[in-house]
Amino acid sequence: MRALLIVAHGSRRAESNEEVKSLTDQLRIRIEALPQADFGFVDCAFLELAEPSIEDGMHDCVGKGAREVVILPYFLSAGRHVAQDIPAIVEQVAATLPAVKIRIAPYLGSSAGLSNLMLELAK
Amino acid sequence: MRALLIVAHGSRRAESNEEVKSLTDQLRIRIEALPQADFGFVDCAFLELAEPSIEDGMHDCVGKGAREVVILPYFLSAGRHVAQDIPAIVEQVAATLPAVKIRIAPYLGSSAGLSNLMLELAK
Repeated sequence: MRALLIVAHGSRRAESNEEVKSLTDQLRIRIEALPQADFGFVDCAFLELAEPSIEDGMHDCVGKGAREVVILPYFLSAGRHVAQDIPAIVEQVAATLPAVKIRIAPYLGSSAGLSNLMLELAK
Repeated sequence: MRALLIVAHGSRRAESNEEVKSLTDQLRIRIEALPQADFGFVDCAFLELAEPSIEDGMHDCVGKGAREVVILPYFLSAGRHVAQDIPAIVEQVAATLPAVKIRIAPYLGSSAGLSNLMLELAK
């Protein structure tokens, strides 16, 4: 089974973390509705300031039966967090899970679809 | 003429600001290609740490002939910046531009299309 783990920065403001959880719920519902579900488990984790941590999130995916975990950084720019911090944590956890295939997807801000979305919002 | 001003947080990291400018360029090209262009001018501005400021960006829109300015917050969560700081600055500048219609669009993180985009990235 393949799991999807959305990784956000995390905020001191509980509502911001709730927004990420709510988006994760939307994504889960959307995926479950697909004729051929791409991911059997969808959850979120946070780099800092909120829980679960990336490590706990990854372990939870595996505990739920995932043999493949896709990490999706919910960040708008390719700063230090996306380029270094997240890969470092993921690599460290991955080293303890040799039987699991782990992959980091492109971060949100790199999506070519963003400009379409923004045009919709601006209208 | 209607202008679109993307407002991002701004970063000490020049590449992050460049990412916003590049996305703005993409958006401009996309809008210019529309059979009926929604916006005659598209640019970006920053809340802090980068230039132009929101104030300068808004004045530039008007200087280019805009009689309507749509501000689009390029933020993932509805924190203090989206809920208070940006509206406060926009209101202050708007008060000096009584002939211009000014509107703040929903922030990026509120877009229902985000989950689709993320699904595409994860695949």
